[in-house]
Amino acid sequence: MTKIKITLPDGSAKEYNRGITAGEIAFGIGKRLGEDALIASINGKLKDLFMPINEDSSLQIITYRDKEGVDAFRHSTAHLLAQAVVELFPDAKPTIGPAVEEGFYYDFDIAHHFIPEDLQKIEERMQEIVKKDFKVERVDLNEGEAKKLFKDNPYKIELIEEFHREKQPISAYKQGNFIDLCRGPHTPSTGKIKAFKLTNIAAAYWRGDSKKQQLQRIYGISFPEKGMLDSHLKLIEEAEKRDHRRIGKELEWFNFFEESPGAPFFYPKGTIIYNLLLNFIREEYRKRGYHEVITPLLYEKNLWITSGHWEHFREHMFTLQSEGKEFALKPMNCPSHVLIYKSKSRSYKDLPLRIADFAPLHRNELSGVLSGLTRVRKMSQDDAHIFLAPEQIEDEIFRVLDFVHHIYNEVFDFEFKVELSTRPEKFMGKIEDWNKAEEALKRALEKKKISYEIKEGEGAFYGPKIDFHIKDAIGRGWQLATIQLDFQLPERFDATYVGADNSKHGVVMIHRALIGSVERFMGILVEHYAGKLPLWLAPVQVKILTVADRFEKYADKIKEEFEKNNIRVDVDARTESLGYKVREAQLHKIPLVLTVGEKEEANNAVAVRTLDNKVYFDVKIEDFLSKVLRNIEEKKVKVEME
Amino acid sequence: MTKIKITLPDGSAKEYNRGITAGEIAFGIGKRLGEDALIASINGKLKDLFMPINEDSSLQIITYRDKEGVDAFRHSTAHLLAQAVVELFPDAKPTIGPAVEEGFYYDFDIAHHFIPEDLQKIEERMQEIVKKDFKVERVDLNEGEAKKLFKDNPYKIELIEEFHREKQPISAYKQGNFIDLCRGPHTPSTGKIKAFKLTNIAAAYWRGDSKKQQLQRIYGISFPEKGMLDSHLKLIEEAEKRDHRRIGKELEWFNFFEESPGAPFFYPKGTIIYNLLLNFIREEYRKRGYHEVITPLLYEKNLWITSGHWEHFREHMFTLQSEGKEFALKPMNCPSHVLIYKSKSRSYKDLPLRIADFAPLHRNELSGVLSGLTRVRKMSQDDAHIFLAPEQIEDEIFRVLDFVHHIYNEVFDFEFKVELSTRPEKFMGKIEDWNKAEEALKRALEKKKISYEIKEGEGAFYGPKIDFHIKDAIGRGWQLATIQLDFQLPERFDATYVGADNSKHGVVMIHRALIGSVERFMGILVEHYAGKLPLWLAPVQVKILTVADRFEKYADKIKEEFEKNNIRVDVDARTESLGYKVREAQLHKIPLVLTVGEKEEANNAVAVRTLDNKVYFDVKIEDFLSKVLRNIEEKKVKVEME
Repeated sequence: MTKIKITLPDGSAKEYNRGITAGEIAFGIGKRLGEDALIASINGKLKDLFMPINEDSSLQIITYRDKEGVDAFRHSTAHLLAQAVVELFPDAKPTIGPAVEEGFYYDFDIAHHFIPEDLQKIEERMQEIVKKDFKVERVDLNEGEAKKLFKDNPYKIELIEEFHREKQPISAYKQGNFIDLCRGPHTPSTGKIKAFKLTNIAAAYWRGDSKKQQLQRIYGISFPEKGMLDSHLKLIEEAEKRDHRRIGKELEWFNFFEESPGAPFFYPKGTIIYNLLLNFIREEYRKRGYHEVITPLLYEKNLWITSGHWEHFREHMFTLQSEGKEFALKPMNCPSHVLIYKSKSRSYKDLPLRIADFAPLHRNELSGVLSGLTRVRKMSQDDAHIFLAPEQIEDEIFRVLDFVHHIYNEVFDFEFKVELSTRPEKFMGKIEDWNKAEEALKRALEKKKISYEIKEGEGAFYGPKIDFHIKDAIGRGWQLATIQLDFQLPERFDATYVGADNSKHGVVMIHRALIGSVERFMGILVEHYAGKLPLWLAPVQVKILTVADRFEKYADKIKEEFEKNNIRVDVDARTESLGYKVREAQLHKIPLVLTVGEKEEANNAVAVRTLDNKVYFDVKIEDFLSKVLRNIEEKKVKVEME
Repeated sequence: MTKIKITLPDGSAKEYNRGITAGEIAFGIGKRLGEDALIASINGKLKDLFMPINEDSSLQIITYRDKEGVDAFRHSTAHLLAQAVVELFPDAKPTIGPAVEEGFYYDFDIAHHFIPEDLQKIEERMQEIVKKDFKVERVDLNEGEAKKLFKDNPYKIELIEEFHREKQPISAYKQGNFIDLCRGPHTPSTGKIKAFKLTNIAAAYWRGDSKKQQLQRIYGISFPEKGMLDSHLKLIEEAEKRDHRRIGKELEWFNFFEESPGAPFFYPKGTIIYNLLLNFIREEYRKRGYHEVITPLLYEKNLWITSGHWEHFREHMFTLQSEGKEFALKPMNCPSHVLIYKSKSRSYKDLPLRIADFAPLHRNELSGVLSGLTRVRKMSQDDAHIFLAPEQIEDEIFRVLDFVHHIYNEVFDFEFKVELSTRPEKFMGKIEDWNKAEEALKRALEKKKISYEIKEGEGAFYGPKIDFHIKDAIGRGWQLATIQLDFQLPERFDATYVGADNSKHGVVMIHRALIGSVERFMGILVEHYAGKLPLWLAPVQVKILTVADRFEKYADKIKEEFEKNNIRVDVDARTESLGYKVREAQLHKIPLVLTVGEKEEANNAVAVRTLDNKVYFDVKIEDFLSKVLRNIEEKKVKVEME
């Protein structure tokens, strides 16, 4: 029997009999890998585990730990779903059923209208199919065979004709009595799909075209272990509780109107939070030598041509005409700041020059992808551009890292991980400049004692960058700060400085946004803290509740004193029960609820209740004030009254 | 001889012989009026003083005190200019020469290129023509006569043909040997034009069309008295010294770039001023029960149709397309705030609801009229909309008046006058609502002891309004605050509240902006204070100059102490002479220049120099700090160190 050589990702190679499958090799390496294996990457192409390998090949076994494994697993669950639906509703015509970011879906042409109860029935049938652990088989077909096989399904016929026209191979996958037109690859048997849930029914159209046949879509999620599904469902539930869109609306912090898609309206309380975030960043700017500017929003096309945005970003820009000239609303601040930089001759003594801007930015995102504060058309960033000499990179990056660390770790309580993306294959500029810059970034990260992962070759063509991913309170990751070095934009604008040698040099730019979009950051904060913002950020910090009418005067007296100290305070002197008033204040996520009655008035004190329901009796006003003011001053995440 | 009856503006009537002229009547009324008379309004139409009056008529003698008089006077000066040019340059072909806002101009087709020295020669010739005191005569012509008269001037021929085509009367005015095609009316003789100055030469095109013949334009100004010209020239000179565009650029406070016409770039120091103004207004909002919101800038067309802006303001709006829908950048905040108002059911207990917004507004102004910060395409206003019940108008207007008074009189030092504009002929709504509202406005003005002028019938069709005109340090007037009542917009949006009677009522809106456009207000402040802003607004408040190198440490120590107190302070420790450093700091309009040397360091003191060059020696740091902090806290206009 002919032997073939299989090379594994670690570089080790082994000989096997010709015709061996990836699944067999996986089991040969270890039982656990054999069981976890979903598909394989053979010579860089994704294949089924059960395909015989007939020549020397490189092989990677793909499991659920790999993105490609997750996709195949979900795609296989979509087939499982389709099989169950066709068995239960024989007139249903399956159309397409891909893996998507959150799980998978399958679209059916069916007369019956799916109702939530159907989902349970379908899930049960899916379970049965899983139990039967059908082997999944691939069938390669020519156009005629395929058309014969799917003759009752006009959607598949349309796809087959398209594949044929485009000279693509045509294949189908079979499990039990169910066969579906599909490119694959798939998990080797239905029994692999240990845990799944159908989550939603939605209307859809064939090929997403509202002029074509209306279909019914079933969404679902799936996992290789029951425990993973449970955690996921719990996360979803927790995420729903924390959904910033719901909290924002309920607490009247912000909202959206169809008159301006993707552009939030911040109500008075939301505006307080927003402005506090800006002022926090401004305070840091003052300490850290940044200079805020206010810049126009509309710029003539020529500027965008020079900056390269017209070529690379035009579809995301809102453009308009005035007096026969074309303008665009700015999606980014960079060119505005280069104009300011270039407005006078700059000397090396002026560098680094740190220009900061909170200008509203507009991006023409598709209305379909807009979502709350995290995906918007209008936003402001804590955006700054630092103009500096190449030899200042390390020192300046260190300062920026210190700034990020202060925000994420000292003010908020986010864990974060850091990625350094280096020179890609296609790059502009000199290799030696890239090397020096990458070394400077590494030294700065090491000096700041920040551990990082290197993303080899994933930098932008115009410079290396450092990305920060934070983890929120329920473990979700969010990409936040970016520190992007740029050698190219200054060159496009011919932005230079006069060096100590009295001659002109190209300046380097750092693009950096640390909280990123203020809107998105606010959305993340709301979800991270489940609406219970740190005291310094809470729109109403203190609510004073009277236990009876006659204490209103005392409540007002305290209120006035607090307001003199710039504390945001309300009084609830309604004749409702104290329990009711406490509950309401807590629903409004007010960090400190004070109650005042006979004893409190006599002692010039209050009873304090925090949002985690700790109660402190007989706290002297003076004490309370000093603790609260210190907490606010220090931007603490928690309120302690001890 | 037939008699005719002449009725004067005061209602008095008198009989005169038929054929009498307005000029004769004016002299009959009084010698002074006769001499001041420029033209006449006869039965509401502007006529020459020397035209015989042949029927019963109403008559108003127009002098330089009337807008129409100023225009006729300037227009006559343009003829005077043309006569002088034609006499000096016989090949010059006069085209048109109107009165304009600042004076007048005349456009000539002439081979010679005017140079500044020509202006003096022309002025001298104009003086001679004035001295000769030519009578001005009107000649009515038919097309043929006119064409014959102006046969050598193709521009006049074109105009004559146009007048003929449009069936307009054709007339010419003659003074000495000079005759010009003109509608009139004109001053009765060249001797009336006592004082004038030619101010500028510019390129122009026939009919403003760059594809047509290029012409040369001469600008000028003119007055009936030499003293008025002198004051005007002095004002111009003073205004030029204070020109905010120059100061803004020189002090690097703000600037403009052609990439974004009409949209200022505020540099770091200008941004400090801008943000201080916003924060000042925000502080007041907090005290006065206003709620700031942050709103989108782009809205769908439908909103603008509902608000009426699409019909009435569309040409001033920047519009664009996205996903096949039409959007406009907001030129005003009103509809955004109505959306917020309507986002929930409102009770009479929620009113007045005061919604404030600093959103950037965009207006598509012609690039030709843009001018510095005072005429822009992008700006933010200290804009608020107050939603209230009709019976709250008086009280709320009183509060707004108090707010205006505080800004103009207590914080800044502007004199102002007030106009109340009442129901116009074309109005919407019920007369009784108008009457009640107008009475409420009057009572509020009287209660706040603000004297006002009534502009009968000059209100907007949707409600009466109060306008504020301030006078700056060199006597120029600026229209600033507007308080506009609006019964209509809430109706267009069906914005209501639930009254104490538990039924729905239409809410009333007040549109109000007190400093108006922040950009424009900043421009006015810069000119009013000639760049010497009040201490609290100065971007750099204190500059510490060392008299010798060895005092740098002491300077830095003081700086640090000042910064702890949020004072914006710089140190100039260069080894330049003290005189040089003082001069430079004063050119930068820094309110307080401190010098530190041996004695100061020994005494923990500074020498203080204010911008009006008062010097205070040996001021203890502690003393200085307490005085300065109080001055800033109280937003004083002047710094006193006594």
